[in-house]
Amino acid sequence: VNSNQDQPDDGAVLRVAPPAQRSAGYDVIVRAGSLNAIGTVAAVVAPADRYAVLAPASVAALYGNAALGSLAEAGLGAELFTFADGEQQKTRQTWAELTDAMLERRLGRDSCIIALGGGVAGDIAGFVAATYMRGVPVLQVPTTLLAMLDAAVGGKTGIDTAAGKNLVGAFHPPAAVIMDPLVLRTLPVEELRSGVAEAIKHGAILDLAYFRWIEANADAILAADPAALQRLVARSVGLKARIVAEDPFEEGIRAILNFGHTVGHALERESGYSMRHGYAVAAGMAAEAGIGEAVGVTERGTAAQLATVLQRFGLPAAPGAGGAAASALLDGMRLDKKARRGLPRMTLLRAIGECAPDSTGSWTHEVPAETVVACLQGDARGTDAV
Amino acid sequence: VNSNQDQPDDGAVLRVAPPAQRSAGYDVIVRAGSLNAIGTVAAVVAPADRYAVLAPASVAALYGNAALGSLAEAGLGAELFTFADGEQQKTRQTWAELTDAMLERRLGRDSCIIALGGGVAGDIAGFVAATYMRGVPVLQVPTTLLAMLDAAVGGKTGIDTAAGKNLVGAFHPPAAVIMDPLVLRTLPVEELRSGVAEAIKHGAILDLAYFRWIEANADAILAADPAALQRLVARSVGLKARIVAEDPFEEGIRAILNFGHTVGHALERESGYSMRHGYAVAAGMAAEAGIGEAVGVTERGTAAQLATVLQRFGLPAAPGAGGAAASALLDGMRLDKKARRGLPRMTLLRAIGECAPDSTGSWTHEVPAETVVACLQGDARGTDAV
Repeated sequence: VNSNQDQPDDGAVLRVAPPAQRSAGYDVIVRAGSLNAIGTVAAVVAPADRYAVLAPASVAALYGNAALGSLAEAGLGAELFTFADGEQQKTRQTWAELTDAMLERRLGRDSCIIALGGGVAGDIAGFVAATYMRGVPVLQVPTTLLAMLDAAVGGKTGIDTAAGKNLVGAFHPPAAVIMDPLVLRTLPVEELRSGVAEAIKHGAILDLAYFRWIEANADAILAADPAALQRLVARSVGLKARIVAEDPFEEGIRAILNFGHTVGHALERESGYSMRHGYAVAAGMAAEAGIGEAVGVTERGTAAQLATVLQRFGLPAAPGAGGAAASALLDGMRLDKKARRGLPRMTLLRAIGECAPDSTGSWTHEVPAETVVACLQGDARGTDAV
Repeated sequence: VNSNQDQPDDGAVLRVAPPAQRSAGYDVIVRAGSLNAIGTVAAVVAPADRYAVLAPASVAALYGNAALGSLAEAGLGAELFTFADGEQQKTRQTWAELTDAMLERRLGRDSCIIALGGGVAGDIAGFVAATYMRGVPVLQVPTTLLAMLDAAVGGKTGIDTAAGKNLVGAFHPPAAVIMDPLVLRTLPVEELRSGVAEAIKHGAILDLAYFRWIEANADAILAADPAALQRLVARSVGLKARIVAEDPFEEGIRAILNFGHTVGHALERESGYSMRHGYAVAAGMAAEAGIGEAVGVTERGTAAQLATVLQRFGLPAAPGAGGAAASALLDGMRLDKKARRGLPRMTLLRAIGECAPDSTGSWTHEVPAETVVACLQGDARGTDAV
């Protein structure tokens, strides 16, 4: 040990050298019946002393036993922790209650969390994992189409506050993600539609062929055909995984995954979070396509193409906001995490299948408030009206 | 874009490739007068739209203007957010209030937090930064000796809950750390002693020469001699930085920094957190040295050497626990983050200046409960009594 006794007394600058990389990446398993493989996957990717399955009450009732049974079969000790259903539960309080319940059961830092449920479960259980004893591994097991396509991959976790959605949270990549398309058979059709909105987004920002495939297979998808859903999930996740791997902390290209979300989040907030996320994103994509056309970034006709597909799936194809609502929405956008210097920013398409960077190379654009308000007030499909 | 249309329908495993490294390391500046350099350092290491200075009321009164002035001089917009003094404020509530205050002031993801104050400020402001919009940069500006040597370097952030200290938190390395030894001139002597306990720990686990230097310079250190404190801080931070860089997420060697902390945290908890951290660590080191001798890992006489130095600084050199207290302490240790399978673990010295791994190579040892209780009940200095 060098005791450094010759160090000058007039000051020192000590360098804490780069920390080693924490994560070596993770697998996303998309396979019918994989719900029964939770235990074997957990044993391999996140060996732990004990496992905490965190699930909302409704999901616990449906799949809690399957999850616990799979863990027990693999010889792993597990306990179930439940919380009330609903987006309005995605609060600091639920997070604190789940954490305290785990502490009370004496789960140590050598524990692993299984996040079982929809987007709320993934976000909140992921945030518990991110902050429990400064971080324990989490296995994401999404049980809704929306959660499979949106929240479960990418490591974003968080809770809502009075000021907005997901304003408090952490990046905490999962140890693995297990998606079992068979659980989607029992999903209400509105939940299915809500998830398809994210798939349409993936096509719109990255893959014209996929966008067309979704439109061509609308009947099979809406009928929850297992083969169609397997393909939808695998293709969407494949597209998202590529972007997340390229930019894990959303410092650049990952922002394109927020297409439709600047307006969408504001719509959700204005609805008091009664509006389904996918519906809000659908309306948000329609609005942002219209805004993109209005500012000359997005090819003319793009908003109309998008609206056609959204309507095919029974999704909103316009924000439908009146005058007062439009300025309230704008205010919400100023608090969006993408906002910079207090000004809203959004991802804009060049055309279906491709995004456009702004003049500085950023994947979000600053858009004049007047344009936003005008597009929100008008019919986003009818960009001629702008 | 590859649209992957030939993908089989019977399942897929998609790999999310390793995320890029987030942090490129950070500098720790130890220099008299560096409090006035906050602005210029911030402008370089964490350029942001706005800066939030988070400080407890007492520190805000002493150094808030200096911090804001330095930021203003560098042309940076900044606001001060204060909270009540005391370890009992290191709660979810304070964290939530600070976060909400920042959200209300519309600070975006392009903000940076300045954590100004002692260990509580560093931990709580660091946790606000770790979770604000999924993470904003933090500049640590510790104003106590303990915070300089302990909390400010290494990226640990967190809050206390009813179940124990720092059980909720995150790893969030700072953008830089600024230590101005001149602020230590006004520190109460108990605070100085509390900090010295951590320096003694650094010597005990890593550097015999440094351990002896601390003992030889006790008078100058206790008199808050600027040159002695500058050297103490720089050497301790140098030692800690080396360990943190080697093991940023405490998966191995970093555990040695917890020497004295298994018993120490339990003592703090039993005192209702009225005991100063450094005093608890001092008593904890004495106890753990005694335990190490009792299980034959630590060289005989080590506990006595340690006790001599601790007493030289007016620090406790024994846990001083009665019978009932000893088993309550043991219970507390089971909840320690180092506990595995519900059993307490602790770092043990081989001798002053060196730690000993256990037989599996781990830097923490599982210790029989009887030995722990016997050592806590006895006088930790008198290892002959075990």
